[in-house]
Amino acid sequence: MSGIYSQMLQSKLFTKTKKEGPKDEVSKNAILLIRAGFIHKEMAGVYSFLPLGLKVLRRIEEVIRAEMDKLGSEVLLPALSSPEPWKQTGRLETVDVLMKTIGANDLSLQKSDASYILNSTHEEIITPIAKESNSSYKDLPVAYYQIQTKFRNEARAKSGLLRGREFRMKDLYSFHKDEVDLKEYYDKVKESYFTIFKKLGLGDDTFITLASGGDFTPDFSHEFQTLCESGEDLIYLDRANKIAYNKEVVTPEMSKKLGVDFEKLEQVKACEVGNIFPLNTKFSKAFNYNYTDEKGEEQLVYMGSYGIGPSRLMGVIVEKFADDMGLVWPHQVSPFDVHLVVLGEKGSPAFKAAEDVYQKLTERGIEVLLDDRNLRAGEKFAEADLIGIPLRAVISEKTLLLKKVEIKARGEKEARLVTSVELFSYLDAHKKQT
Amino acid sequence: MSGIYSQMLQSKLFTKTKKEGPKDEVSKNAILLIRAGFIHKEMAGVYSFLPLGLKVLRRIEEVIRAEMDKLGSEVLLPALSSPEPWKQTGRLETVDVLMKTIGANDLSLQKSDASYILNSTHEEIITPIAKESNSSYKDLPVAYYQIQTKFRNEARAKSGLLRGREFRMKDLYSFHKDEVDLKEYYDKVKESYFTIFKKLGLGDDTFITLASGGDFTPDFSHEFQTLCESGEDLIYLDRANKIAYNKEVVTPEMSKKLGVDFEKLEQVKACEVGNIFPLNTKFSKAFNYNYTDEKGEEQLVYMGSYGIGPSRLMGVIVEKFADDMGLVWPHQVSPFDVHLVVLGEKGSPAFKAAEDVYQKLTERGIEVLLDDRNLRAGEKFAEADLIGIPLRAVISEKTLLLKKVEIKARGEKEARLVTSVELFSYLDAHKKQT
Repeated sequence: MSGIYSQMLQSKLFTKTKKEGPKDEVSKNAILLIRAGFIHKEMAGVYSFLPLGLKVLRRIEEVIRAEMDKLGSEVLLPALSSPEPWKQTGRLETVDVLMKTIGANDLSLQKSDASYILNSTHEEIITPIAKESNSSYKDLPVAYYQIQTKFRNEARAKSGLLRGREFRMKDLYSFHKDEVDLKEYYDKVKESYFTIFKKLGLGDDTFITLASGGDFTPDFSHEFQTLCESGEDLIYLDRANKIAYNKEVVTPEMSKKLGVDFEKLEQVKACEVGNIFPLNTKFSKAFNYNYTDEKGEEQLVYMGSYGIGPSRLMGVIVEKFADDMGLVWPHQVSPFDVHLVVLGEKGSPAFKAAEDVYQKLTERGIEVLLDDRNLRAGEKFAEADLIGIPLRAVISEKTLLLKKVEIKARGEKEARLVTSVELFSYLDAHKKQT
Repeated sequence: MSGIYSQMLQSKLFTKTKKEGPKDEVSKNAILLIRAGFIHKEMAGVYSFLPLGLKVLRRIEEVIRAEMDKLGSEVLLPALSSPEPWKQTGRLETVDVLMKTIGANDLSLQKSDASYILNSTHEEIITPIAKESNSSYKDLPVAYYQIQTKFRNEARAKSGLLRGREFRMKDLYSFHKDEVDLKEYYDKVKESYFTIFKKLGLGDDTFITLASGGDFTPDFSHEFQTLCESGEDLIYLDRANKIAYNKEVVTPEMSKKLGVDFEKLEQVKACEVGNIFPLNTKFSKAFNYNYTDEKGEEQLVYMGSYGIGPSRLMGVIVEKFADDMGLVWPHQVSPFDVHLVVLGEKGSPAFKAAEDVYQKLTERGIEVLLDDRNLRAGEKFAEADLIGIPLRAVISEKTLLLKKVEIKARGEKEARLVTSVELFSYLDAHKKQT
């Protein structure tokens, strides 16, 4: 069986599932992801992504990247920066989750008075870059995005991947001639976000949510909130109109302004999976970012910023779909398309048949995790349920005699026997949905 | 011309080339990469990767990843960690480039006595992970790698991408039953590294270089050094035997031990592009990482670590190949396969012809940067040379009349006229080399 990446053999996964959950975790997503060998806890709010976990994270990021490529150019901004741009916007003193670096020991050349900022967001970094290359009305609008690791010193970091001190973030920044152009682009991003959440299987339970625009704008900013029992946010949901309001806007004043009776709305727990901000001219003012308009006059640039957290989304997907047996991955983000379980030792007829099916599946572009280990059926099935790949396919002496493969979708209770041709078309069909 | 990603149109690159180099840079790679709009300087040793630069970085990382997938499982380890594992190995006090984080302002909850380490390398992180899942001889050997952003507080950060305070790193860690197995794997990695440097166009000028094993081993560790005028290292090169020695091993004692007369060797400047360390039992001892052998006895695990810096490699490639006119990218890592320059306004016959060629090239899987801007020919050509894509193809009214395309390889002086079919086969041929 040459040409198989070792990553596809369960005996070579190099991470093991655990029967017991970790004692220092309280969140469902962290407990299950650690038990199933997807992540490893380094400290509160900081996790390593192990091979299975990294595959899921990558798939989520690819869904996001495909949409973002339609909206802007990908860049990679640094985690470190000088404190200067943060001083310029005044946020060095106001962002409480912001960290800076100093030398870790006496040998270090970096004293505490020569600190670098560990960026928790990148408005301070991207605005000077955009300014340098886009100073004419002809250059606008322009948008940059990145998918990168960010850092926040979170007070509470007990929710696994839902609230990390270190986490993956997609951030998009757009620059415009005026408010009208910003608004038009902003609405396009909104649509794009809905597409992403739909692809990730969260579409039906994710609602756009009005939030305060903060000090950026007299308008609202918008959050995308996914209904979730373990969510940290309480939102006021108008299900019929597919819109929600976050706690901070639920005031008598806003009720009047919006003509909404908040008391009639559902109060539900939710997890914020994205947010979009019309920043308007806050950052262009701070960095003196003007462009020359059609008449040769200087005008302030309008700006928006748009975030989605891929690692948090991974946590939300676990919280939403996992059941008593373990993880349940939607097809789109599952680490593999099918979990092929052999019952039989290496070299046995069942094993050889499984190798054959494996080969045929990979040739069709199906990603297979092959459980080639010599363990009891019950143990293998329990682990397959814990890992949560959408389809389990079993090949044993028994199925061989019947010239069938036994399949079971992760959500189903009963397995059924199909021919290998039926298996292929089942997988092709589900592949196409993605 | 629908379906074109905006990233492929030069008018939509959203970064601009500069006629003048930056005043605060002295290194060739930083000056050219900034002038050509590939990177943006955030502070000494810290750069943003702009769209063109990110494409090059990605291509380098893909070359490395393809080889690493044959050697181990990909993971993503965190940048932050608790100080505990660093205390356990004693390196918290000895690694002078190590940084820790504290709150950036008075609002922060993170006081200086609650610091997180910003990892400069990951032996302290991966060893406990490997230990958790691989405790039997049946589980070994096992290897994990990652491609990730790392942090070092470098004293001198004046060499652009050659020495960063924040930089991209591929690090691979392997765990073995004994020294023999480690050695065997170590040699495989050596071969793999040579394959990578060859693919990146650095094969002929990259030499394996004996270095001191440090406190890890009585053996040598190995560096991969690429000959380079601007390199920070001085090595003693035995060109005939394709081996070199770094400064630290050039001692009378070693001369005797190795039977090498260092005085007869070439002294050349070089840049370290990779390193491999037989760590032996240093880290398994620190973390008490034993495995159970065939007889049921506890044995210390042997370990190796292996690094390659993708962002540094990008700098080295610039230093090696760039000329007076600008950057020169090898096919394998170029941001695009061909730079298609139109001379003619939007809607003109030349522009339409270029759109047609563009479409045909992209259908063939060729990545094209289309210079669709309305600028003088001289200006466009100078910029094409600065950006350094391996082939420039020009379509103008003149070439249209002749039913030809004018092509010029980046290294060549003279352009020549070819049919579009000849252009396709030239690009197919060069595509295949990669």
